[in-house]
Amino acid sequence: MQADRLYFEDFVPGRQFPLGPKTVSAAEIIEFATEFDPQPMHLSEEAGKASILGGLAASGWHTSSMLMRMIVDSHIANSSCQGSPGIEFMDWKKPVLADDTLAGQATVLEARALKSRPGLGLVRMRTELQNQRGQAVCAAEQVIMFGMRDTGETTA
Amino acid sequence: MQADRLYFEDFVPGRQFPLGPKTVSAAEIIEFATEFDPQPMHLSEEAGKASILGGLAASGWHTSSMLMRMIVDSHIANSSCQGSPGIEFMDWKKPVLADDTLAGQATVLEARALKSRPGLGLVRMRTELQNQRGQAVCAAEQVIMFGMRDTGETTA
Repeated sequence: MQADRLYFEDFVPGRQFPLGPKTVSAAEIIEFATEFDPQPMHLSEEAGKASILGGLAASGWHTSSMLMRMIVDSHIANSSCQGSPGIEFMDWKKPVLADDTLAGQATVLEARALKSRPGLGLVRMRTELQNQRGQAVCAAEQVIMFGMRDTGETTA
Repeated sequence: MQADRLYFEDFVPGRQFPLGPKTVSAAEIIEFATEFDPQPMHLSEEAGKASILGGLAASGWHTSSMLMRMIVDSHIANSSCQGSPGIEFMDWKKPVLADDTLAGQATVLEARALKSRPGLGLVRMRTELQNQRGQAVCAAEQVIMFGMRDTGETTA
């Protein structure tokens, strides 16, 4: 057990964790979209400008994946995280355009011990990202499982 | 207007579209996780086996992104799709392990014209994927915007 490692008990409702910043390049947008979401507005500036998104725009799944990386760097990498059963919702509020810089925060909404798996608990988090223009670009709520400090850790 | 192109009017409630199949390799799981979700159970077979996931397992965001690619190939690539405001929910029901083959279906739940944007409509879809063992691995519901056949197209 490491002193600075985060366990279930550390996710107290109301606690916030900063996310980002992360600047996304046109090349990254196109690379992700080529593999996972090859729609014209995610593949070229020209098609993006012609769409209702207004420019070369990241796939919503790319934005979501970048958000996950910010979450890992913020409060998962050095924690007892045991995965997640899914996403309660994910709102894509504004297009994420090439060279946008995203940052935001994760807030603990709720934490409860799992009766069915002693030593594990569920933490419900709200995450939000803004762009450099101060616009909200996405918001999500998700439940994440964490091991408890003394009993729950099953991975190193 | 192409004869076989899908428009809002083609998304009739109850209509189904097949998704996949897609086999995911250990290398793909590790590559995605290295960039977007570098947690031990997504980066090595050994750490995956030691976790509650039971083996090297794809990030839920990777599974979601592979699902998006199946959706694009199935009914988005040749359509009047104008993007999506987000995901209503995404359940990750079972781990997606290296060499698993995923396939499933998308079902139109609801379609309604947008009063605020003439020529555009919202289509609510349910998507589900199973693995080669017949287990449900994920299920999601999402709203997607499509242009109407005669008036709504803004991109080629």
